[in-house]
Amino acid sequence: MKLWQKGIAPAKNVEEFTVGNDYVLDQQLLKYDCIASAAHARMLHKIKILSDNELESLLQGLKKITELDASGKFKIKASDEDCHTAIENYLTAKLGDVGKKIHTGRSRNDQVLTALRLYYRDELNEIDILIDGLQKAFRNFGGKYENVAIPGFTHTRKAMPSGIKMWSDAFADAAEDNKLLVQTVLKTINQSPLGTAAGYGVPLNLDREFTANELGFDKVQQNPVYAQLSRGKFESLILHSLSQIMFDLNRCAADLIFLSMPDWGIFLLPAEYCTGSSIMPQKMNPDVLELVRSNYHIVNSYQNLLQNITANLISGYHRDIQNSKEAVLKSFQLTKDCLTIMTSLIAELAVDTKRAKEHMTDELYATEKAYKLVEQGVPFRDAYRQVAKDIFKDKSSD
Amino acid sequence: MKLWQKGIAPAKNVEEFTVGNDYVLDQQLLKYDCIASAAHARMLHKIKILSDNELESLLQGLKKITELDASGKFKIKASDEDCHTAIENYLTAKLGDVGKKIHTGRSRNDQVLTALRLYYRDELNEIDILIDGLQKAFRNFGGKYENVAIPGFTHTRKAMPSGIKMWSDAFADAAEDNKLLVQTVLKTINQSPLGTAAGYGVPLNLDREFTANELGFDKVQQNPVYAQLSRGKFESLILHSLSQIMFDLNRCAADLIFLSMPDWGIFLLPAEYCTGSSIMPQKMNPDVLELVRSNYHIVNSYQNLLQNITANLISGYHRDIQNSKEAVLKSFQLTKDCLTIMTSLIAELAVDTKRAKEHMTDELYATEKAYKLVEQGVPFRDAYRQVAKDIFKDKSSD
Amino acid sequence: MKLWQKGIAPAKNVEEFTVGNDYVLDQQLLKYDCIASAAHARMLHKIKILSDNELESLLQGLKKITELDASGKFKIKASDEDCHTAIENYLTAKLGDVGKKIHTGRSRNDQVLTALRLYYRDELNEIDILIDGLQKAFRNFGGKYENVAIPGFTHTRKAMPSGIKMWSDAFADAAEDNKLLVQTVLKTINQSPLGTAAGYGVPLNLDREFTANELGFDKVQQNPVYAQLSRGKFESLILHSLSQIMFDLNRCAADLIFLSMPDWGIFLLPAEYCTGSSIMPQKMNPDVLELVRSNYHIVNSYQNLLQNITANLISGYHRDIQNSKEAVLKSFQLTKDCLTIMTSLIAELAVDTKRAKEHMTDELYATEKAYKLVEQGVPFRDAYRQVAKDIFKDKSSD
Amino acid sequence: MKLWQKGIAPAKNVEEFTVGNDYVLDQQLLKYDCIASAAHARMLHKIKILSDNELESLLQGLKKITELDASGKFKIKASDEDCHTAIENYLTAKLGDVGKKIHTGRSRNDQVLTALRLYYRDELNEIDILIDGLQKAFRNFGGKYENVAIPGFTHTRKAMPSGIKMWSDAFADAAEDNKLLVQTVLKTINQSPLGTAAGYGVPLNLDREFTANELGFDKVQQNPVYAQLSRGKFESLILHSLSQIMFDLNRCAADLIFLSMPDWGIFLLPAEYCTGSSIMPQKMNPDVLELVRSNYHIVNSYQNLLQNITANLISGYHRDIQNSKEAVLKSFQLTKDCLTIMTSLIAELAVDTKRAKEHMTDELYATEKAYKLVEQGVPFRDAYRQVAKDIFKDKSSD
Repeated sequence: MKLWQKGIAPAKNVEEFTVGNDYVLDQQLLKYDCIASAAHARMLHKIKILSDNELESLLQGLKKITELDASGKFKIKASDEDCHTAIENYLTAKLGDVGKKIHTGRSRNDQVLTALRLYYRDELNEIDILIDGLQKAFRNFGGKYENVAIPGFTHTRKAMPSGIKMWSDAFADAAEDNKLLVQTVLKTINQSPLGTAAGYGVPLNLDREFTANELGFDKVQQNPVYAQLSRGKFESLILHSLSQIMFDLNRCAADLIFLSMPDWGIFLLPAEYCTGSSIMPQKMNPDVLELVRSNYHIVNSYQNLLQNITANLISGYHRDIQNSKEAVLKSFQLTKDCLTIMTSLIAELAVDTKRAKEHMTDELYATEKAYKLVEQGVPFRDAYRQVAKDIFKDKSSD
Repeated sequence: MKLWQKGIAPAKNVEEFTVGNDYVLDQQLLKYDCIASAAHARMLHKIKILSDNELESLLQGLKKITELDASGKFKIKASDEDCHTAIENYLTAKLGDVGKKIHTGRSRNDQVLTALRLYYRDELNEIDILIDGLQKAFRNFGGKYENVAIPGFTHTRKAMPSGIKMWSDAFADAAEDNKLLVQTVLKTINQSPLGTAAGYGVPLNLDREFTANELGFDKVQQNPVYAQLSRGKFESLILHSLSQIMFDLNRCAADLIFLSMPDWGIFLLPAEYCTGSSIMPQKMNPDVLELVRSNYHIVNSYQNLLQNITANLISGYHRDIQNSKEAVLKSFQLTKDCLTIMTSLIAELAVDTKRAKEHMTDELYATEKAYKLVEQGVPFRDAYRQVAKDIFKDKSSD
Repeated sequence: MKLWQKGIAPAKNVEEFTVGNDYVLDQQLLKYDCIASAAHARMLHKIKILSDNELESLLQGLKKITELDASGKFKIKASDEDCHTAIENYLTAKLGDVGKKIHTGRSRNDQVLTALRLYYRDELNEIDILIDGLQKAFRNFGGKYENVAIPGFTHTRKAMPSGIKMWSDAFADAAEDNKLLVQTVLKTINQSPLGTAAGYGVPLNLDREFTANELGFDKVQQNPVYAQLSRGKFESLILHSLSQIMFDLNRCAADLIFLSMPDWGIFLLPAEYCTGSSIMPQKMNPDVLELVRSNYHIVNSYQNLLQNITANLISGYHRDIQNSKEAVLKSFQLTKDCLTIMTSLIAELAVDTKRAKEHMTDELYATEKAYKLVEQGVPFRDAYRQVAKDIFKDKSSD
Repeated sequence: MKLWQKGIAPAKNVEEFTVGNDYVLDQQLLKYDCIASAAHARMLHKIKILSDNELESLLQGLKKITELDASGKFKIKASDEDCHTAIENYLTAKLGDVGKKIHTGRSRNDQVLTALRLYYRDELNEIDILIDGLQKAFRNFGGKYENVAIPGFTHTRKAMPSGIKMWSDAFADAAEDNKLLVQTVLKTINQSPLGTAAGYGVPLNLDREFTANELGFDKVQQNPVYAQLSRGKFESLILHSLSQIMFDLNRCAADLIFLSMPDWGIFLLPAEYCTGSSIMPQKMNPDVLELVRSNYHIVNSYQNLLQNITANLISGYHRDIQNSKEAVLKSFQLTKDCLTIMTSLIAELAVDTKRAKEHMTDELYATEKAYKLVEQGVPFRDAYRQVAKDIFKDKSSD
């Protein structure tokens, strides 16, 4: 039975349509909902709504669910609709009337917000650690080939001398800025929505500070209307922080795909990160890097979705927001996967220093030539024009 | 074994990362790949690459796969990577050397393009039929309440008299334009890529007209480079046609949610299309309509993805495009689901004609009053100002 | 004075905020509004609302505005708000009371819809002609270098032999599909909204067939609610057709930038399409191509805007839609500019056939080698593996 | 003459195409480029590249440009291409050879990055102040109507009692989170790119700490490759912070449009923030709010643009990025305009407390009824079902 049912059952196709795959996604949120429900129960006990026995009984029930879930034995069914219902149904079935009390003073609206934020917090912390790992991999890689020069490109043309370390450190430095953003996002979302109910509070004297403390939130998100308003808003913020991370990986992948072309041969991709062609026997393709590059766009399109899903709507919960769940869960997974695989790829990446040297051709040093003239007192713009004249004279005499 | 393997196995995590859920999605393409493979085999036989026996054997094998699939017994494994490999592996395992011949003269690139287009054709035809159904539902609904006036809104304010039929016919008329677009998309994609191989043809004298005819394509897509270029491009076109359909449903859902508010009470949503709240006993919420409204944004974000996934890349296949598959498959499914549920919802929708009448208040007729003055010879702009003056005088004397 | 003013003037900053740059953009629509207004006046005369003299007087006034505009002397002022007001104000100032009659039976809503569609029609027809020109340029270019082989790439790696003609024809073929879409869009938008007023018709017996014929529309858009609903919807459709065109140019530009790198030197960009660097004397940069590549994304982002601007809103006009105007006008301009410059660039593009030949290296023929074995009766998959083994043996012995 | 010209002039149409409206946009950056150029000159003097007289002369020249610009007399011409060229051309024309020295040790790439960041910093600081103002307006408004109850909605249906203060404080609280993000963005972008030249440094011993200090940057952005990589990345981050701000304004506008409908009449929009209809005399339309709502989507689409413009490209400058300038400049302007107008609108907003009270109908208290039963010991879920039963029994007996 759904939490909101009163007798009229929705049509079967309606149920399928509305539930969608939400119940599958919710499996990931189950443990967070149990944690939040336990804190909620302890608060209800503190404000005398639950007796000692009732609390004990609910905590045992929630613990049991968590254990079953950990061993893959608590499966949310489509007929449960979501993890919140699955939990309440289980508690009511096992514990009787006390199960019907767990929902006192809350709505599914603040319940899901709370579970999601606990989940976000774990994911963002994991992301933070993965960024660290990638950053180290870039620093190590740059250190390994500290003195290896490679061509620097602008407009997809050889421009000036660059180097492996300069290239590699760029991504390590970018990671630093990404970490600052992730920390800011963490700080922003780490406020407790529990107790805001359906977006307008409840006519009960809840102790919101208590649950916020229990759950490790930095503060209480006091305003119930803001709690609902922040749904979609915080998710868009989270996804933008992931997009910033993926932006760097996209460009890094593009560089590696380009400079590992046999024609350049500067980067040597580890063979186990490549796949072949079904028709061309000679191919070693950088599929991993291409998928990393492509996954950036998935995160962006999910962010785009989140920016629009509740746009133009009045305040207060709308079911439209349900479609945000998959967007966030998948974006976290994709970003974690990409960070992980790029970290191990960078660790195994090699540089063909001989070929790198071969590619350090004359035109890369034209700017240096101009600066030699500057040292002799020629104004920069004149020096530039003189060097350019020499180069293009040579070319036109070809 | 993958089609492209030569000895070096990719790392386990690499395999998981690159295959992703592609093998799951491919289950939907399996039957189309079998159809295309059978046509390809018949062509290879025609140009003497396969003997009579070999052809017969391959056709039997493909038929068997199709039958197993239809009864849910041909499951593509992650280790198969995709439906193409699963098919070739099965044929080779069952039929021996002849299985290794099926891939003669093609690449997975044109193979997947062909299977996808057959799938797209079926889906677009189904969409076309569903649009018809929805259009009829709107016409019927308009007919049922032909003479019922309702307020027309501009700027979310009562503006002028509208009517149920005018409202309902708007969506039926829009459906007509959507159908033209769907037909154009169908015509555009119905060209055979089979024989373009990896985007540069094959050094074999294939009979591409033959396979195009066998598979019901309107024509051969002659240029192999264009065959690859059209990947992503055609998908974006398809998704835009779905976005146009969903645009109408989004606005229609917004109207129904608004005018079925108890405060208006003009539209009466069938109870089985509504759900309740976990905390507020009185609520009957239009969740189905909210999800329809929201799903429009999913299709848009997938279209956004497809427009970007191959952007800025040079011609020729890139693995990046793999991420387009889920986008298209899900968008088709969502659009079909929304068309279906809206058709049945409109069929069961009712109008409270008494309340509609109550809402036909005076201000809706202000323009009519101005036109009465026009009939008496007053220039329109003067008539307008006179009526306005009367209205706002009344208000300021409140 | 604004068309809707009744005495209360909006605050100065409000006026600036709401008008924005709309009055500047409207300069492009002025002539279309005059054409539509003339047709509307003739219709009002036909249904006896305007006398012979009044009609004559209005037609002269509109002709005068058109002439002034053609010579740059009819400037819409910010205080006019838009071209519709500027026209009515001018007519009233010059002609007196008859100027106040021109708005009889219409609203700015259908007036702007009509002017926009006449404008769209002209632009789409121009786009169609420009596509033709580009298509011819590609065919000519392909013909000029008919037998020049170039490497074909997959995964940004040399794959199989391609050719200048195969490459160039790909874009010519794509143009064919783009033309079909543009024609479909033209057909879709070519329906007359004039007479739908503010989206709910007017209490007057207008002859909508008459104005539709006068203005060359294929048909009357009967339903007033659909006329409003199609605003945003048709614009999104138009922009998607432009996005399809720009998609091809994006990929074409990417190819040209890549293969004109001095390191490949296959394409020789005409020098006047390149610019230099402010610091590096040697650079010849493909800026035109980079901007073409980039402009694709502008069209996409505008399309994204149009898909969202009216989403989730109830039917009927909302001022939100004003932001669609710049999106459409700019997208048309950008697409025309890109088609034009790419056509002239392709006309002046050259191929260094000597360098093209040098790049036709061995690995491009690996597939051909496999097919030689197939001709000798080896099953394709075995042939593939044998060739692969030979290649990678050579490499590992390096 | 362009900074990069060497003799071959680009075709006229090419110049128009590449320059676009960049020179117009650059007028806003001119003063920042002068500030950065002065700091650069002082550094060149410090490292002995400029003599005392040369420095003095350049500083005077830059001061003169700034003054001319402030009084609207320094107009960048299309033939100048951008502000950087306009400045160097002016200095060279006025000061001779020393003007040709100002570009020593830099490229337009780091020059534009520096000017942009100084501009971003000013804009973000201004945004921060505007957020403060809006926040105060919301707090004041909430305080003014502290005890006025209004209906709270979920699913666009009356749900539970809310209040003006709860509503208003929601946006004030959201502003707090927006400020944290803006501060983080400020901190992220406030690193000096000056001295990174074209993305690979220069062969000169520049004192980058010196210019960073002079310009008030928090630190030097050491890595030149990262300086280029951060172009597009930082802009996307900035636009996301603006999107977060606009998200709240979008929802706030939606609420105000809805609850100021005459049918609700709860919010009383100040008349000078409304406009009328050209056909319907009675209308008072919330155009300002509709445009605020709509402008949110413009910022989003620009952000979408920035996420894609450099995607999939290798590291190093590409001309594609030029298209980011308008996106950022317009988004800043739009956001500032929206913050400003909403602040003054909220300051003048009124509530019709009588009508607010009328709308506080029975169904809003259903949850409260359930909680009364909870207080009597009924488990919440049973209380909920009992209240629901009572409500729906009443309805079915209608």
